Amino acid sequence: MESHNVAMLGTGLIGDFYTMTLHGQRSRDRVSIVYSRSSERGEAFSQRWGIPHHTTSLEEAIHHDEVDVVVVGLPNFLHEDVIGLTADAGKAVLCTKPLARSGEEAKRILDKVESSGIFAGYLEDLCYTPKTLKAINAVGSGSIGDVTWVRSRETHPGPHSAWFWDKDKAGGGAIVDLGCHCIEIIRNFVGKGNRPVEVMAWADTLVHPIRAEDNAVALIRFESGALGQFEVSWTFRGGMDLRDEVAGTEGTIWLNHFLRTGYEMYSSGGGGGYAAEKLESNEGWLFPVGDEVAELGYVDMFTDMFDALDEGREPQETFYDGYVVNAIMDAAYKSAESRQWEPVDVEWRGATTPRITKKAGEHDGHSIVKKETLPDGRVKLMLSHKDTGEVFDLVTSA
Amino acid sequence: MESHNVAMLGTGLIGDFYTMTLHGQRSRDRVSIVYSRSSERGEAFSQRWGIPHHTTSLEEAIHHDEVDVVVVGLPNFLHEDVIGLTADAGKAVLCTKPLARSGEEAKRILDKVESSGIFAGYLEDLCYTPKTLKAINAVGSGSIGDVTWVRSRETHPGPHSAWFWDKDKAGGGAIVDLGCHCIEIIRNFVGKGNRPVEVMAWADTLVHPIRAEDNAVALIRFESGALGQFEVSWTFRGGMDLRDEVAGTEGTIWLNHFLRTGYEMYSSGGGGGYAAEKLESNEGWLFPVGDEVAELGYVDMFTDMFDALDEGREPQETFYDGYVVNAIMDAAYKSAESRQWEPVDVEWRGATTPRITKKAGEHDGHSIVKKETLPDGRVKLMLSHKDTGEVFDLVTSA
Amino acid sequence: MESHNVAMLGTGLIGDFYTMTLHGQRSRDRVSIVYSRSSERGEAFSQRWGIPHHTTSLEEAIHHDEVDVVVVGLPNFLHEDVIGLTADAGKAVLCTKPLARSGEEAKRILDKVESSGIFAGYLEDLCYTPKTLKAINAVGSGSIGDVTWVRSRETHPGPHSAWFWDKDKAGGGAIVDLGCHCIEIIRNFVGKGNRPVEVMAWADTLVHPIRAEDNAVALIRFESGALGQFEVSWTFRGGMDLRDEVAGTEGTIWLNHFLRTGYEMYSSGGGGGYAAEKLESNEGWLFPVGDEVAELGYVDMFTDMFDALDEGREPQETFYDGYVVNAIMDAAYKSAESRQWEPVDVEWRGATTPRITKKAGEHDGHSIVKKETLPDGRVKLMLSHKDTGEVFDLVTSA
Amino acid sequence: MESHNVAMLGTGLIGDFYTMTLHGQRSRDRVSIVYSRSSERGEAFSQRWGIPHHTTSLEEAIHHDEVDVVVVGLPNFLHEDVIGLTADAGKAVLCTKPLARSGEEAKRILDKVESSGIFAGYLEDLCYTPKTLKAINAVGSGSIGDVTWVRSRETHPGPHSAWFWDKDKAGGGAIVDLGCHCIEIIRNFVGKGNRPVEVMAWADTLVHPIRAEDNAVALIRFESGALGQFEVSWTFRGGMDLRDEVAGTEGTIWLNHFLRTGYEMYSSGGGGGYAAEKLESNEGWLFPVGDEVAELGYVDMFTDMFDALDEGREPQETFYDGYVVNAIMDAAYKSAESRQWEPVDVEWRGATTPRITKKAGEHDGHSIVKKETLPDGRVKLMLSHKDTGEVFDLVTSA
Repeated sequence: MESHNVAMLGTGLIGDFYTMTLHGQRSRDRVSIVYSRSSERGEAFSQRWGIPHHTTSLEEAIHHDEVDVVVVGLPNFLHEDVIGLTADAGKAVLCTKPLARSGEEAKRILDKVESSGIFAGYLEDLCYTPKTLKAINAVGSGSIGDVTWVRSRETHPGPHSAWFWDKDKAGGGAIVDLGCHCIEIIRNFVGKGNRPVEVMAWADTLVHPIRAEDNAVALIRFESGALGQFEVSWTFRGGMDLRDEVAGTEGTIWLNHFLRTGYEMYSSGGGGGYAAEKLESNEGWLFPVGDEVAELGYVDMFTDMFDALDEGREPQETFYDGYVVNAIMDAAYKSAESRQWEPVDVEWRGATTPRITKKAGEHDGHSIVKKETLPDGRVKLMLSHKDTGEVFDLVTSA
Repeated sequence: MESHNVAMLGTGLIGDFYTMTLHGQRSRDRVSIVYSRSSERGEAFSQRWGIPHHTTSLEEAIHHDEVDVVVVGLPNFLHEDVIGLTADAGKAVLCTKPLARSGEEAKRILDKVESSGIFAGYLEDLCYTPKTLKAINAVGSGSIGDVTWVRSRETHPGPHSAWFWDKDKAGGGAIVDLGCHCIEIIRNFVGKGNRPVEVMAWADTLVHPIRAEDNAVALIRFESGALGQFEVSWTFRGGMDLRDEVAGTEGTIWLNHFLRTGYEMYSSGGGGGYAAEKLESNEGWLFPVGDEVAELGYVDMFTDMFDALDEGREPQETFYDGYVVNAIMDAAYKSAESRQWEPVDVEWRGATTPRITKKAGEHDGHSIVKKETLPDGRVKLMLSHKDTGEVFDLVTSA
Repeated sequence: MESHNVAMLGTGLIGDFYTMTLHGQRSRDRVSIVYSRSSERGEAFSQRWGIPHHTTSLEEAIHHDEVDVVVVGLPNFLHEDVIGLTADAGKAVLCTKPLARSGEEAKRILDKVESSGIFAGYLEDLCYTPKTLKAINAVGSGSIGDVTWVRSRETHPGPHSAWFWDKDKAGGGAIVDLGCHCIEIIRNFVGKGNRPVEVMAWADTLVHPIRAEDNAVALIRFESGALGQFEVSWTFRGGMDLRDEVAGTEGTIWLNHFLRTGYEMYSSGGGGGYAAEKLESNEGWLFPVGDEVAELGYVDMFTDMFDALDEGREPQETFYDGYVVNAIMDAAYKSAESRQWEPVDVEWRGATTPRITKKAGEHDGHSIVKKETLPDGRVKLMLSHKDTGEVFDLVTSA
Repeated sequence: MESHNVAMLGTGLIGDFYTMTLHGQRSRDRVSIVYSRSSERGEAFSQRWGIPHHTTSLEEAIHHDEVDVVVVGLPNFLHEDVIGLTADAGKAVLCTKPLARSGEEAKRILDKVESSGIFAGYLEDLCYTPKTLKAINAVGSGSIGDVTWVRSRETHPGPHSAWFWDKDKAGGGAIVDLGCHCIEIIRNFVGKGNRPVEVMAWADTLVHPIRAEDNAVALIRFESGALGQFEVSWTFRGGMDLRDEVAGTEGTIWLNHFLRTGYEMYSSGGGGGYAAEKLESNEGWLFPVGDEVAELGYVDMFTDMFDALDEGREPQETFYDGYVVNAIMDAAYKSAESRQWEPVDVEWRGATTPRITKKAGEHDGHSIVKKETLPDGRVKLMLSHKDTGEVFDLVTSA
């Protein structure tokens, strides 16, 4: 039963979520040292979570003797450097999402990590929510047939630190902050071996005084013909809306990760304290989730990461996945500019995926478009004529 | 208290829904004559609904003495002709959706009707559901601020007659059958005076052996900057999924018209009979709606149509609206081909709509991106620098 | 096509709902005169609804020439007298719920009406909601087998006029105001011919400074063995909670009439106006219903009443039903005092209902308690031993 | 960082859930040995979960060198004996629910454990679901004011082993199997120091050929005036229905633990495998939960148990709680027989709880029953007269 000692880089909201998870329940892994640019924030964080050491030196944190795993919870523009340092130190690295600010940057990170031979995991928590894992499994076992369409939506009233809103530091706006989740969720449902061919995106800055987009919608066409669709917004009102919908030839899956999960509370405003991430108020009807770090995937994510490390296998979410996500986001930004579909420029390692299966039966040589049983027991066939393609009705006895 | 006598043209599913509504509750209006190409179907229909007359002659139906209102419930390719006949007869006409197979055809119909001076109403039932009416009213009264985004989704396992599946007779596939609803719902939420500028669409035939699209997603950009988004499918599994979502700068509205309306039933399969339109089964968990013709808008729609006729005013949904819808669908088909945004080619009668309001406050001349109250009572400002546009954090005492 | 002219007695909230319904959509019936004790309120009401006449004289209203139907929307303590006057006038009477303040009073009203021979209908709107009607029909057609249990819940923050809170004028508190709905809903689901045998109730005045109960729960045992359960409260927070749950041997039905009907809105508080009955606020997450008078049953109720009148048949809800409801409430109050089950003292006109069916199969003479298929295909039987009644497991090959 | 080695007694469904939890995620605790009466089942279980030892000897399991914690997952009638053995061995014991078959048996177990001084935890998982923990915390912090009413409902189509259905071995039927959960959930919400005073219960055997009850409803009156209400059934159709509702003077909480938790799937029946506990089918609309052992409370339960053991404190759920639950169930059975309220016979260790607060304001000496703001801005007061108690309306300017 191996356990791990972690250097936590960064003390923002994501650092809290990560550490809450690592120290949660009966976990056997621990954070040994935390890095922050600010000595004050580092100290407060280490006290909050019972972490033995804190430092303002990246090197000290990464090279700390006890540490075998480095968790990167820093702003996007710092990822490349610190992952480089970690690779040079030969330690395992787990990096928060998105991996980088562009496909190019992501590719350099990927190359660095692969050439150094270290273990690397992409901390894409929303692909690890218990519902998502179960749903991916259901899709994989054929419960809904071939996937034709996936909608992934992530919207809330906006992030909590300045750098997120700054195009240069973040690499973009709501697409980079939220779309990265959606894209990887979509990939898990359509199949990771299903090549993302091209992207069409709309993006606009509707409300906030920033240069980055605060609203965007994008369509991703996959090799199988399946369509991915993501919707992101920093102007949503009412909390945090995280929903995924998957349509298949044999079924449908709807997941709701936040506002409608079976916890509904009305309060006239008494009491107090934290109810859930990004709720706008603590009165009226509120919809918190039960255990946020479990529901939002952090628990299963770190389990997979550390188990993969122990077992010498790849985790579910790899740096290559992070790179593909960045490549898709690049195409989205290009499309928002060019106003047309843009190809996804990615070094593809996946397989070739066949087209979604059409299974039309035949009747007298004509293809059956639809078959319905009438109230009187007779069968109504809608047939596509073998020669003309014209569709016509035919009512027959059962 | 005026009442009306109707000639019902067509005996398909829509004819049943219309007549069920017209003869429903304590209504004072009645269908006097029904037209069907098939004498057999016309007779069965007239008996089913207690209608005094039936005929296989369009002229006879339209010119029938008692009749003052003609309701067109015929396939799309027949609309132009029968509306022409009705206009010539000088009677009021109410036409089912879509108005036509193209913007051009719709424009000819509109011109014909306007030059003849008859009353004309566009039977867009889903813009009249009680929830939709209440929501449009809430938006109009400012409850959710400026509308930024509308999603309208209509999907089910496909229509019940051959002509729907036939591109020539219908004018298209799922976009024409279902998208016409979505587009007009979106227009009601962003404001009918808000010009639809351009459309980007994806359409594909994923499952059925037909030439028309069985799945499509489209984005519509309006003059205010708001985005409309519609999703249509003839391959949805699980019933009929009709949902609308509206995001505004001050709020959010979610409407569910079918599968989650507060009626949930599990049945091991006993009993029988019709539970709801397009449910796939009568066992397992089922989600019928209560009163379909009321919930789907037919009741409020005919009330508005006949009241408008009595009061000498326009109904909420006019032939001009039907024409705009067709123009938007034309742009969608063009975009699905050209793979880029396509302008909406429409003779615009609406106003000019200003851009969605940005209301950023200022602090020391910098624009406030976001303002949060920290647990210790201090205020965290995320500010966009007045000179550089860089976003930075500033924590101040409240 | 007959139509009716109504004398509306009372101008409270219920009078508004009734008149909104009677004058709603394309209705052919009208209110001709309204009675109020207050001339001012009567005038305002008549203007609000376009009613030709108003009066402060009960006699004038009831005897008005045009009027053929009298609708009683007055406080409970006035029902007996005005129904008597209407019976003497020989006009049809429709009385709001509850019929009376006690079973005894209800019985006198019933006797008076039956001896006079007039048409009488019991305005129990919540038994006429479209969902309820469809669900009653589903139960009747066997979709959920034999009904074993019904829960009906009606709670909100309390009524809007003083007399409701006054035990003497109302005949009780929340049980009389809300329980009357629940009881009749339960009766419709277990079958109106299913005799209510006895009642066990808890009632308490937990929050308000009144003598009547503001919270109560009661159990009603029916002849078939089915259990009815109602929950009423005037202290609920969060709006109006109207839910029914029905369990059967072959299925389950859950109805939600108010807070979760597919209309969900978040508002930061802008806009304004009426959103729905008894919502506590117009900001935060709100859950109005679409068309209240339709969703809450008023439309179908008046349709049934007037159709019944026209067709010379009984309506679904009769004064006899109102009397049974009062008798059950009497038993509830008695039980809340005596702290034991109390028999329902009612002149029973219904049939005898057999016990809920037990359908246990047999295996080697032992009764099968449960049968499960194991993952390996074998069948596990839980058997009740024919001699000892001991339950034992038996695993057999399929 | 201490860790524990467990002897797992029993290889039924509950043993699987417990072991899945103990070995789940990055847990540091492990099952060292499993006991089963059947050598075959013990071996299969140990292989399924990677447990080093298995035995058919209770003594061997309990006395095993590595073991410091004994988990009792055996049928109810075996609890007293094996807890006695564990106490004699001086090891910590965690016992599944219910603690015993009666209050008397539970009291003997409690006494034994307390006199031996071992650590003892009551494995009441449903009081540890993340939603329940968060809700208990919200109630404790005053978010919903004083609790007035709690409904806890647990129903499904019946358990999977014969002994559950056998009154002698289980100590009862659905009340003992399911009601024990509900009662302890209710206690957590009304406050564990809030004495359960008396119980009124209905129980019947409606469907199954058994002597135990398969359906029951009970009311529990607490010292504060709050009412607990539980509903249990072994005849529910549609899956597993676990819901809790809490009403307070300032708010409302609704928890849904199973059928509506944000995972909705329609499947035409393809694929396969386990979807969730007690789902009746794998086609149609299905409502599995994400991570069952987390959602149903097992994870947080064992964390609390082992943390309590490590920290030398009591866990949230103790054997005393188990004893109180058994005492309440005894009163329920007595009441189902006597058909009246029955006092709860328990050695009370809790505090005295004051009556729910009434906070009526006053106006001119009269108590304010309700206060409403009219559309015109005036205020309507419903007042209880200081002398007569009569309730009257008073409209004043704001």
